[in-house]
This record gives sequence, C-alpha cells and structure tokens, in this order.
Amino acid sequence: MRGYKKPTVSVIGASGYSGAELTKILLRHPSVKLEKLYAHTQAGKKVQDVYPFLDTDAVFESYGGEKDTDIYFLALPHGEASSIVPKLADAGKLVIDLSGDFRLKNPEEHLKYYLKSKDPDAVLTYAMPELFHDEIQQAKAVSNPGCYATSIILGIAPLVKKPLNSALVKSINCSAISGISGAGRSSKVELSFSEMSGNIRAYKVGKHQHTPEILQALDTDTVEPRFDFLFTPMIAPLVRGIYAVLNIQLDKHLPVSQIEKHFKEFYRSAPFVRVRPTMPEIQHVAYTNYCDIHIAESTDNGSAVIVTAIDNLVKGAAGQAVQNMNILLGYDETLGLL
Amino acid sequence: MRGYKKPTVSVIGASGYSGAELTKILLRHPSVKLEKLYAHTQAGKKVQDVYPFLDTDAVFESYGGEKDTDIYFLALPHGEASSIVPKLADAGKLVIDLSGDFRLKNPEEHLKYYLKSKDPDAVLTYAMPELFHDEIQQAKAVSNPGCYATSIILGIAPLVKKPLNSALVKSINCSAISGISGAGRSSKVELSFSEMSGNIRAYKVGKHQHTPEILQALDTDTVEPRFDFLFTPMIAPLVRGIYAVLNIQLDKHLPVSQIEKHFKEFYRSAPFVRVRPTMPEIQHVAYTNYCDIHIAESTDNGSAVIVTAIDNLVKGAAGQAVQNMNILLGYDETLGLL
Amino acid sequence: MRGYKKPTVSVIGASGYSGAELTKILLRHPSVKLEKLYAHTQAGKKVQDVYPFLDTDAVFESYGGEKDTDIYFLALPHGEASSIVPKLADAGKLVIDLSGDFRLKNPEEHLKYYLKSKDPDAVLTYAMPELFHDEIQQAKAVSNPGCYATSIILGIAPLVKKPLNSALVKSINCSAISGISGAGRSSKVELSFSEMSGNIRAYKVGKHQHTPEILQALDTDTVEPRFDFLFTPMIAPLVRGIYAVLNIQLDKHLPVSQIEKHFKEFYRSAPFVRVRPTMPEIQHVAYTNYCDIHIAESTDNGSAVIVTAIDNLVKGAAGQAVQNMNILLGYDETLGLL
Amino acid sequence: MRGYKKPTVSVIGASGYSGAELTKILLRHPSVKLEKLYAHTQAGKKVQDVYPFLDTDAVFESYGGEKDTDIYFLALPHGEASSIVPKLADAGKLVIDLSGDFRLKNPEEHLKYYLKSKDPDAVLTYAMPELFHDEIQQAKAVSNPGCYATSIILGIAPLVKKPLNSALVKSINCSAISGISGAGRSSKVELSFSEMSGNIRAYKVGKHQHTPEILQALDTDTVEPRFDFLFTPMIAPLVRGIYAVLNIQLDKHLPVSQIEKHFKEFYRSAPFVRVRPTMPEIQHVAYTNYCDIHIAESTDNGSAVIVTAIDNLVKGAAGQAVQNMNILLGYDETLGLL
Repeated sequence: MRGYKKPTVSVIGASGYSGAELTKILLRHPSVKLEKLYAHTQAGKKVQDVYPFLDTDAVFESYGGEKDTDIYFLALPHGEASSIVPKLADAGKLVIDLSGDFRLKNPEEHLKYYLKSKDPDAVLTYAMPELFHDEIQQAKAVSNPGCYATSIILGIAPLVKKPLNSALVKSINCSAISGISGAGRSSKVELSFSEMSGNIRAYKVGKHQHTPEILQALDTDTVEPRFDFLFTPMIAPLVRGIYAVLNIQLDKHLPVSQIEKHFKEFYRSAPFVRVRPTMPEIQHVAYTNYCDIHIAESTDNGSAVIVTAIDNLVKGAAGQAVQNMNILLGYDETLGLL
Repeated sequence: MRGYKKPTVSVIGASGYSGAELTKILLRHPSVKLEKLYAHTQAGKKVQDVYPFLDTDAVFESYGGEKDTDIYFLALPHGEASSIVPKLADAGKLVIDLSGDFRLKNPEEHLKYYLKSKDPDAVLTYAMPELFHDEIQQAKAVSNPGCYATSIILGIAPLVKKPLNSALVKSINCSAISGISGAGRSSKVELSFSEMSGNIRAYKVGKHQHTPEILQALDTDTVEPRFDFLFTPMIAPLVRGIYAVLNIQLDKHLPVSQIEKHFKEFYRSAPFVRVRPTMPEIQHVAYTNYCDIHIAESTDNGSAVIVTAIDNLVKGAAGQAVQNMNILLGYDETLGLL
Repeated sequence: MRGYKKPTVSVIGASGYSGAELTKILLRHPSVKLEKLYAHTQAGKKVQDVYPFLDTDAVFESYGGEKDTDIYFLALPHGEASSIVPKLADAGKLVIDLSGDFRLKNPEEHLKYYLKSKDPDAVLTYAMPELFHDEIQQAKAVSNPGCYATSIILGIAPLVKKPLNSALVKSINCSAISGISGAGRSSKVELSFSEMSGNIRAYKVGKHQHTPEILQALDTDTVEPRFDFLFTPMIAPLVRGIYAVLNIQLDKHLPVSQIEKHFKEFYRSAPFVRVRPTMPEIQHVAYTNYCDIHIAESTDNGSAVIVTAIDNLVKGAAGQAVQNMNILLGYDETLGLL
Repeated sequence: MRGYKKPTVSVIGASGYSGAELTKILLRHPSVKLEKLYAHTQAGKKVQDVYPFLDTDAVFESYGGEKDTDIYFLALPHGEASSIVPKLADAGKLVIDLSGDFRLKNPEEHLKYYLKSKDPDAVLTYAMPELFHDEIQQAKAVSNPGCYATSIILGIAPLVKKPLNSALVKSINCSAISGISGAGRSSKVELSFSEMSGNIRAYKVGKHQHTPEILQALDTDTVEPRFDFLFTPMIAPLVRGIYAVLNIQLDKHLPVSQIEKHFKEFYRSAPFVRVRPTMPEIQHVAYTNYCDIHIAESTDNGSAVIVTAIDNLVKGAAGQAVQNMNILLGYDETLGLL
C-alpha cells in the first residue's frame, strides 16, 4: 500500500462532468480521503450549489500549485494538464490525468489530432488496466484512457493482441454512439435540449482524436499486416454511455462461440469486463464501471461484429481513473467501485 | 378580402423557433405568397442551411426597413419590435407581432415584468381569436398572445367572461409545463441536453410576464370580486407543448358536466378549441393549432380543475399568428392550418 | 442495535423498479447482509440477467413463507403484502412494507381508493422519519410512505403540524409530476417510449390513492378548520423523480423568509430534507435520498407556493425504506445512503 | 391521369403509426379524396379518439373485402396483406402495400427472414422511386420499401448500380439507428419509456429482414464480384428517424468530392434525395420525405463512409407510399409532400 495509511486526494478540474463523477466516487471510497476540489471558473462556490446531488460541504478552490495531498486527479480540458502534471510527479505525488495531453507518443499525431504541439517526453503510462495492469502498478503518474477509446479497445484487443487460430485482423470499422455528457458541460446551441432531443449527429468521421490512441494501445506496429481502421463517432439523445459497434474483418472465419471463449479467457482477470451472451444495452452499464461485450455475429467470410457498452463518465472516465488509483495504491482494483 | 389577390408576406425574425414554424406554415398556405425572411444574425445564410426541414430556397436577409409586402409577421425578441411595428402600420401593412411589446396597456406593469419602459400608446388589439374575433377583424395591426397566456386564458375565460349559474371565480392557481423550445434557440448551459434530460425546473413563480397579459385579457376589472391569481411555470424534458393545470376556486359548486357544456357552448364557433371528455396530452396537439381542454374535476366546495394542452410553437405562437392573419384577410380562420 | 451483529435481509418483490433500487442500496450497505431476493414471475433467473447493473450473483427465488432472515422488505403490488406481513411480524421479524396495504386507518377510504376491502387492524406505523421518528423507533413493522405522498407531505407538514404565527391552512392545491418509473415495470402501450416521449398526461385528478394517505399523515382532524385539498398527478418524459408544486392558501400573509426559517427549524434534525434558497430540480436529487424544498412565493393574500423534488425510487421508495430500516435497527439514519 | 378526376383512397391498417402518418398526409393531399380508414382492432372507434392530432371525423371500420375506392394503401403487419392485395389488384385497383409480403422474389429468403412461406408469384414492383421510377409508372400494384432498406439503399446505390471510375464495391458494413416508432405501436416492456430512455440496443445483427431486400434492390447478381454485406440495426431513445452509417470498401480510392459529384448526378431527378456537404441529422429530415446523404470520408485504401438520414414514418413508410401513389397516378411526384 506504498506506506500510506488513508491517502489524501485532490481533484483538479472538479467542476466538469468527469470531475463531478470523480467527486461522487471518491466521497464514497472507503480507503482514501478526498480533500480538495479545484475548479477555476467555479472557485469560491460551494460544490453543492453546482452539483446538489454531491454529499459534501466542500467549496471549489482555484488551483495555485498546491502539492499537499498524496494523490491528484486532473480532469482538465485538453492542453491544461501538460504544465501541471510534471510538477506533481516530480514532487512524488501519484497522478492520474484524464486529459489527452499525455496519451500519444507521437508528437506529430498529437499535433494533427489535438491541433497543439507537444513535448515528445510528455507521455505517461497508458492506464487501461485490462491491458497494462503491471505497467500501471509500476507507475506513479498515468494517463487515463479516452471514453471512446475504452469502449473500442476493449472490444478489439483480444483479437489483435492475441490472435485466435492465427486469424489476422485486416480491417476494423467502428460506429460508436456517445451520450451528450461526453461533450462536457456545454453551452453550445447544437447541444441544447431543443436541438438534440429526437436527433442524431455524426461528427469527425475518420478524424476523431481517439483514433491514434486506439491504434497506439493496440500496438499495431508489431502486428503484420497492419489493419485499416475507420471510426465514426455519433451523439444521440441520451446523457450517459457509449455504445460501440465494431465490424472486424479477419482473414478467416472464427465461430462466435470460439471468439466468445477467447474473450472470456483474455479478460479472466478483468473484474469490470463482462463478456455476455446477450446484447449490451446502455442501461445495463450506466452508473457502473462495467464494460459489457457481446460477440454479435461472425460470417463465413471472416467478418465479425462485436458490440460493447460502457458509461462514458464512469468506465470511460472517472470510474476507470479510480480503478487506476486503486492499482497505484496496491488496493483491490474494485475498491469503492462496486 | 381587402382587395388583395394573393397577398405577399414577410417574416421579420425568421430564424428563431417561432420564425421557423411560421415559415413552415406560410410555405404551405394556399392563399398567401411568402416573399422575404429577415433574420439579423443569420443574414446571408440559406434558410435550408439553418433549418434543412424547410422547403425553400430562400436566403435570410437583414431587415432594413423594407415595406414591399402586404403582410408582416414579427417574431423578434421582446423590445425589438417596438420601433418597427408603427412604421409598417403607418404604411398600411397588415402586421402580426408575436412579441410582448404591444400586449400590455399598463406601462407600469410592462416595466415591472419586461424591465423596459414603454410608450402608453404602444398597444395593439390582443389577438386571441376565440375571445376577440371581431376586434381582430377590424384591426390592421395586432399583437399575438403569449404561449402560456394562450393555454391559460382559454381554460379560464368561459368561467370568468360569462359566469355559469352566477358562480364567481375567487382564485386561480395555475401550474403550466412548457417544452424547452419556449426558451428560444438558446446556448444557455442550463438548457443543454445534459442538464435538461430527466430534469424539471420551475422558474419565475408568481413573476412571469404572462401574468398581467392573462389578467388583462380576462378583463378582470369588470368582474367583482377580482380573483387572486398565481402562476407557476416549469420546463420539462420535451421540446414542444404547454400543459396547463388550472385550479379554479369558485364560490359555489358546479358539476363537471355543466362546466363542460358551458365550455362547449362558449367555444362553439372556435374551430381550434376542443373541449374533450378525456385528459389532454401534448402528443394530441403537437404540430397542430388545437387547444384541447378537459374539465378534470369539480369538488363540492367549488374547486374545479381544468387541464389544457397546446403546441407552444403553433397555437402558442406561429399557428395562432396565421389564424390571425386569416381573420385580418377575411379568409376562413383555419386556412392553411388543417 | 437490538442484539444483531450484522443483520440479514431479504427483499420480497425484488424484481420491480423499487425492488431493484432496494437491492442496489442494500448491496452497498455496510451494516446489513442481503441474503434473499424473492420475485414470483422472475423466479429462477439470475438477478444480473434482469438487472445487469446490479453487482450480485444472486438468483431470484419464489417466496414460500420463509422466515430465515432478520429483516424483510416487501415491494409487492398493492394487495399482495397483506397476507405476508402479519406472519413475518408475528415471527418477530423487522418488516418494512412498501405497498399501500397497511397505510390507511380507515377501511372505507382504503376501499374507495384501492378498490379492495381491508381488515381494520391492518395498519402499521406510517414510517415517514421526518414526522414520526420516535414511533418508527418503537415499531417492529412499518409502512413505507407512497412516493407522491412523501414529496407532498414534506412540503406541507411544517405549516399544518406547527402553524407559524397561528396561520391556518385553508386550502391546498398540488400539482405533481412523476417520472414514468412510478408506474412500475410496465407493458402498457400508453407508457411506451413512442407514446411518452415529448408527452405529458395528467390522471386520477382528485382521485389518487395518495390523497387520504397525505391527509391522514397531516392528522388534519385535530386542526381546525380542516383544509380543502386537491391533487393533480401527472407523468412527463423522464424516468425518475417527483416534482411537486404546492399552492397553499393561508388565512394570513407570511413572508417567504419567515416560512423558510420555519421549515429549516422544523427539519433541523432531518438529514435528508434540504430547505434551499434556489429552485429544486429533479437532477439535484436523482439517485439520492434527498428531498429538496424551496419556498417559491408568498402573496399578500396568504397564497404560498412551495416546490419540492425527490427521486421517486429513492426517497419515494427504496431509500426511505432503508432509512427506516436504519432507524428500526438503531443505526445512524443515513447509513448506506450517503 | 388514368382517367380519374379526384381519385378516392382507402387505408387498410390505418391505426398503426404508419397508417396514422398515411392518414395525415392523405388528408392534406390536394388531388385525392381519403374515404375509408380500416383498422381491425380499433374498428368502431373515432379516428380522433385514437389519434387526436388527425383532422378528421372518420371512424375506423373493419375491412370486409370492400373494393369501392380507386386506390388502396395497406399498412398491415407482415403476413396479413398477402391475401388481400391480389383481390384488389384483380379488381383493377391501384395498390401500394407497405408490408414485406411482396418484396422478396426468393421464397427461401422470405421464409428465412420472415419465418413464413410465400407464394413465388407474390412479388410486386419494388417501389423505390429513385431507382425504379419507370417500372412503378407502369405498375398498378407496388410494394413499398422497408424503412431501413430505404435509408441504406439510397446511400449505396450510386456506387453499386453505376460504378464510378470502375471502382467495385468489395464489402459494406452498415450500422443504422432507428427511432422506436419503427417497432410499431407496441406494449412490449423493453420498448417502454422507462426501459428505453437513456438506452441503446442493437438487435438482429446480420439477421434483419431488410438485408435480402437491400441486396435484391441493388441487383447484386449482375455485379461482379458480389460484395459482402453486414447490417447492424439499433434502437435509440428517439421516436422518429433512421440514421445510417455505411462503411463501403471499394477496390480503389475515390476522392470525397468525386463521390459527391457522382451522387448528385445519380440523383439529379430525385426531388427527395439531398446530397449535402454537411453531416445529416435526424432533425433535418423529421416530418419530411427527404433522404439526406453526406459523403463523410474516403480513405486512401478505398474505404468510404456515407451517412444518410430519413424519417422512418415518412420517407421510410407513408411519405414514400404517397410518392409512389403520385407516380402511379401520373401526378407530380412531390404533390402533397412538400
């Protein structure tokens, strides 16, 4: 447990949706003590005045470089964590960053997708516990995966990382539908209730910033031949959840039952991944840290459809971040999450 | 028909939700020709780029004082119509103003509720066809009623304007729920999908600007004793519609069947008011110009509950405006609306 | 703590929405052990197959009269608890019944509103902790309040039970909007998504079965003069929550600030009631056991508007039931609920 | 105009959602006269008691083999039209059937997907006006396309029917999200508001009955090599609309601009297909007969993403049916639909 008794925790960027979800989970967590909630624009306001459903008397504060708690979560807009994380890490703090600032190894891809240049050294362990549990355990500062990336990687990794019957992935087409909270606490007209009720809208087709993150996590450089990958994100009229339909073209036919068995074996130590015999639904995973996976179809020509569902604010953000914190602290991975 | 063949129409403020609804109805109207769509902030954009469901090749223009069509609808934010309407009226145009600028006779009440002073002469015929059909027919410029006001006045007027069995109204409590489109095309965080899905919020209790409009329309000065009136507006997670629950305290008991008969008689010439034996629902009136009314309960002590439903953008705004245009033009009241 | 170490709990009727919410809360509760989940129609199914968001490997069983746990929650349809509760109570079990079977003292009113006759002795302590904490503490079997009743009683009780400045309540008009989960897990066409999206519907105006429950809880026989009471329930397109607008006519004017102070004093020992200076919203209380109350308006003639919000499945059902269990067990009232 | 003055029309199966939409459109149509509305289970009820938004005094009748109007629409559940259509056709009536009974040429595929055997002769002209305008014009009885099929075929046909730069389609993966009205007026628990709000659910992956319909319409037998096709249908929390994401793998790269130009050329005579430069949204096409198409992406390796949106009840059912009626009658295709 790294010598802590009951470690203290702060959240920087606590007033967005991910920050509020983090706060909710951390307040319930039995083995850490939530101390500070930093939020620039809401500084000075009582947390309950912004999120009355949170059980706390805390007041949002402006972050001024404090380093007085053991653990720091950063739930800041992309670009704002890059200058803070190194200082906290240098001071020996445990850091879980929820932004995209430290995910991509390749600065050119970062520039292309985030439209900002980055320091090539600004890379942290990619903290997807189902794939990189040991690396996370060794780390002190980690980068929490993106929401779409989580739902997609978990549905593909078993076939890419550990080919079944030597079947190689030739191409992957993903369509994923996100709840609107994924766009953050927003005042854009196009995200207003009147515009999004009864509406669906795709965006950034083939250009979403989670694309390089997914490919990097799947470590596709070592898999030959490298597969084609195309991702279509959409928003639909729900607040929470990501529903991903993954069309995977393999170079041979694999029966559904074999793929299912392979997935179950691959995730046998992953407490939050459920390979289920029935179709996922958002309501099955909403407000939980589960990722539900179903092998929906496999055709003779090797085309397989895998469907996954997560809560974008929990497994796609705050829940996975706390899961990572548990690993960093040597706790049971599920502590405070079930 | 006032000498027109096929009168020409313009809409000033065509890019808001009421303006778009007006445009939709006018494009289908068999006996007018829609010519110009004015919208300040969207000027230069094709109408279909903003509202792709509208069947027109028109382009939004900036209004610069033109007076080249026979009829003008103004669907502007409160305060912006006050300087335009008089000029159009002076030029002999037929004018239907959908704002609150010309509704209240009492400048002090206007100041209190709209927080803007007004010219005491800035009053137009209050164009609720079910109550003031003849005055509208005589007018050239009229003020279209507010959405809440429409749903509430129609549910009360028969008992106030024409007491049944001499029963006097002692007090009225209204709760009315509006679709979120009533707040306009908005970029406020509190109207975003993520904030309003699954949510309900009351506001301006006892202070909504439709309160004096309702009392003025009911002409309560001539009814003794003047009744108490309290109105609680709410928004709920739907786009269109107003659902009003009107608790009316009378000084004597009136059976439901008598009230229902009285309402039917009162509205016998009103093609869009339906006094129905079953409970109204928003879906019964959405996308129509109907106002559904149901006498829901009447207790021994004289307390009656009347429930009404309208589409806030149709009977509560654009539909009623076209109904008024039909009356101004001497057309059948329902033309283009059924 | 009545001699238990970690008491064991069963839920009878665990497969409805209230039962599922109970299960979720009890699984997280630190000081009881959830043992059996009984559900007639779902017997034999794994709980996670019906409610995949629940963290349990339990299987629904058919209830056959077992009495092997310390505590029993009954979340059955009205009428089905009446024969089970007495046997469990006689066996010395702690019983919390969520149905309407044991709420009303007057068999005639029960017959009128539930359309079923009842034994005059079938009455349990009405377990609204904010009003009857001591009676609950003395009881072994209690009747959990109805959802609408909870939201309405809490908004009225301070003015009825403990008149402020001797102001007497003359009449109360309530409009309350419920989430659709309040109708249970239903296959009625009129509750389908296609019918209820964008829709609002009032029902049972003046005839809802919570009416006598509210009046009984307010003990109006001892208050003179007895006030008139009229309640209009509605459903709107949200799953969870009750939003109640309470129009209270007093015989004198009381300023908002005085009423607010009075409410705060009245609920000073009630950890789940929050008298707040801003308007309640469903999203402020959803998934919590809070009841938010706001004194919205008070007019010169004594008409006051009080607005309350709860989650119908938590404070309106399962959460309040666990709150009652905590009291029965001598635990802190909030245990497992924050 | 085939000798009719103002032809008379009946709808058989008028009480479902497609039937109600048909009724709404036909009531507004300037050049036909709606006479009879047949609905078995609702027979005897006033149409307005079931659908109060419809402007008619008609009463639903039970269909007993009448042949007294010129045109018949059948909006019956699959299987129920098969015995009625031949009799109407034999009597010289114009018939538009909205069911799947007469769509598939191959009886084995019909059996496989509809689980019912069919007469090999029970095939009518597949009435998708954008592809088969001339055949429809020659026909007297036609089969209206399925909703998913419409949204998918229109997004694929230009590349399959008329290869661009000789590019051959190798495979197609479709994900399409339907509004819940597509499931009909249903009392299934899993389609209730409480289950579908905030929820998404895929179903029948690779097994939906529109799959053979799509392939037959694309006439893939004559295109070599025949492409692989995989379709994942989903429902999301909206009432109306289909949003289709079509991932098309070509054997060579085609730039987006070329594909767009090709589509515009292909649909130059199709008044309801709009090839647009921006992303489709359901709200752009809801309550209209439009199909919006956008070429969203095209990668170097020949993978193209095409996104389409329709209203499932209009272009996907009733609107397209009236469009077909217009063609059968020799009217302008858009009559009564704009």
